[in-house]
Amino acid sequence: MKDVTTHIPTYEDMLAAHERIKPYIHRTPVLTSSFLNELTGAELFFKCENFQKAGAFKVRGASNAVFGLPDALAQRGVATHSSGNHALSLSYAAGRRGIPCNVVMPRTAPQAKKDAVRGYGGIITECEPSTTSREAVFAEVQERTGAEFVHPYNDPRVIAGQGTCSKELMEQADGLDAVIAPIGGGGMVSGTCLTLSTLAPEVEIYAAEPEQADDAYRSFKAGHIIADDAPVTIADGLKVPLKENTWHFVSNYVTDILTASEDEIIDAMKLTWKRMKIVMEASCAPPLATILKNPEIFRGKRVGVIITGGNVDLDALPWIGRG
Amino acid sequence: MKDVTTHIPTYEDMLAAHERIKPYIHRTPVLTSSFLNELTGAELFFKCENFQKAGAFKVRGASNAVFGLPDALAQRGVATHSSGNHALSLSYAAGRRGIPCNVVMPRTAPQAKKDAVRGYGGIITECEPSTTSREAVFAEVQERTGAEFVHPYNDPRVIAGQGTCSKELMEQADGLDAVIAPIGGGGMVSGTCLTLSTLAPEVEIYAAEPEQADDAYRSFKAGHIIADDAPVTIADGLKVPLKENTWHFVSNYVTDILTASEDEIIDAMKLTWKRMKIVMEASCAPPLATILKNPEIFRGKRVGVIITGGNVDLDALPWIGRG
Repeated sequence: MKDVTTHIPTYEDMLAAHERIKPYIHRTPVLTSSFLNELTGAELFFKCENFQKAGAFKVRGASNAVFGLPDALAQRGVATHSSGNHALSLSYAAGRRGIPCNVVMPRTAPQAKKDAVRGYGGIITECEPSTTSREAVFAEVQERTGAEFVHPYNDPRVIAGQGTCSKELMEQADGLDAVIAPIGGGGMVSGTCLTLSTLAPEVEIYAAEPEQADDAYRSFKAGHIIADDAPVTIADGLKVPLKENTWHFVSNYVTDILTASEDEIIDAMKLTWKRMKIVMEASCAPPLATILKNPEIFRGKRVGVIITGGNVDLDALPWIGRG
Repeated sequence: MKDVTTHIPTYEDMLAAHERIKPYIHRTPVLTSSFLNELTGAELFFKCENFQKAGAFKVRGASNAVFGLPDALAQRGVATHSSGNHALSLSYAAGRRGIPCNVVMPRTAPQAKKDAVRGYGGIITECEPSTTSREAVFAEVQERTGAEFVHPYNDPRVIAGQGTCSKELMEQADGLDAVIAPIGGGGMVSGTCLTLSTLAPEVEIYAAEPEQADDAYRSFKAGHIIADDAPVTIADGLKVPLKENTWHFVSNYVTDILTASEDEIIDAMKLTWKRMKIVMEASCAPPLATILKNPEIFRGKRVGVIITGGNVDLDALPWIGRG
């Protein structure tokens, strides 16, 4: 089997991904807000992946991986150990192809997350909440099923799939000067780099990150990957570290990485809900938070802002009960 | 001055309204949800007026009233005594025309509502929280300013403006069998009747109402207007009674009025937020609540659902802290 982890996807891979996944994804709308334009002094174009199938952009990469598998491999199914949007998306995509999706999740994961994965048809195998247990259980599942591992972000098929988002954005919003997306493991930012470095190399690419999980920021400044152990942030989709494939894109094509505090993230999240009337995750808020914090970078520019997902626990909103 | 309250607007009034207000409103998107389609057995097309300027469909009617005024009248401004979305919308529209908007509000109204009206440029005059005081203060404001009164829903200019929403919906979603909207004073439902009775008389028109403010339902069954005194419901935009102009449309063109309990409204509201990732008011939820409650009416049909507004107090969501 080809070692996918060392393969850097190309612009052609992204184009092929878009053709492959079109039947299974939404071409999500781009929304604007005159209030937020006035507030920031920029013209913001929000690419609303919170309206995406399974509630997040992750379905682009997951669908590309699932539908790109040859039949013989596909019938054994796919597997992952994410407990977040990637697990939902992979379950959704596998369901659309009619193949099994195995998800290894800690038994301590919130019931709501388990229910959501099962709601999309995923088969959960529980592990203990430790890396050792997760790896052992995952190896057992893969051994038993022969399922194809699809990494949440370091997989080149996944990166090529995520790159389709900024392809659509460039078709939907003319003359962008910059694009900004949140960064965790770097899948969306890498896909954005992959697409824009060929399609529109003049467009600046910014990544936005929580101060409390600023490993990508520190990696970018240091020139090599720095991984944090279990950072704590409200933006729970952004806790994971860069890996070699995403580091390739981040280190070569990103203009800068900007950070925001927890309060700035929560304020930007609430402001977006209030003014744009959309439900988005805390993990989507660092871009607007950093635009508000660094107006001199964005003033007068046309800026694409990627809203990455909308899978929120509506019973636990971060601004309620805040001191 | 023409007594506008006895004038029933025509289809041509609605067409003229659409041309007049186009520069000041959004053509809001129509969203769909495969999850909600499966759940209801219907095909639902959500017309998202929560994304409208000033956050609600009310800006259609308000803009039509404001921009239809001859210059001599307009320079004296407009006035209303709503404390809800109509006040925001009228303030927005007046601001776009550069004329004053006077809003009479009880001094006990929430600070957030006062701030929102002022945020759109409205001039607030406070009254005591009683009908007597409101009428006296409003008369004084009108006397002093000569401002044109724009009623939140009984005004034919407002009804013609609200009718532009279903005109767009019919252009955006093919072959609808039915349209459903919430009903309070009946402005949106009347506009829908106005438009569809000419444009697509075969389309059924349903109105949805809280059980706890079911005056329109009881009026419809009784054949004459019944007004409640201060009903209590989470759907606070739907507390007001029908008036003669809206009763004309409701009594002549509505297929049926359906009601939902407070719990059903809150559940439908939360379900919409969770699955469609949109922020909408409790007042928007009775349509989905009644579709879920009466599946036999809607199963197999293509149904337009009007999401009326998105101005929500994000610090006081009705499902949080519910027993």
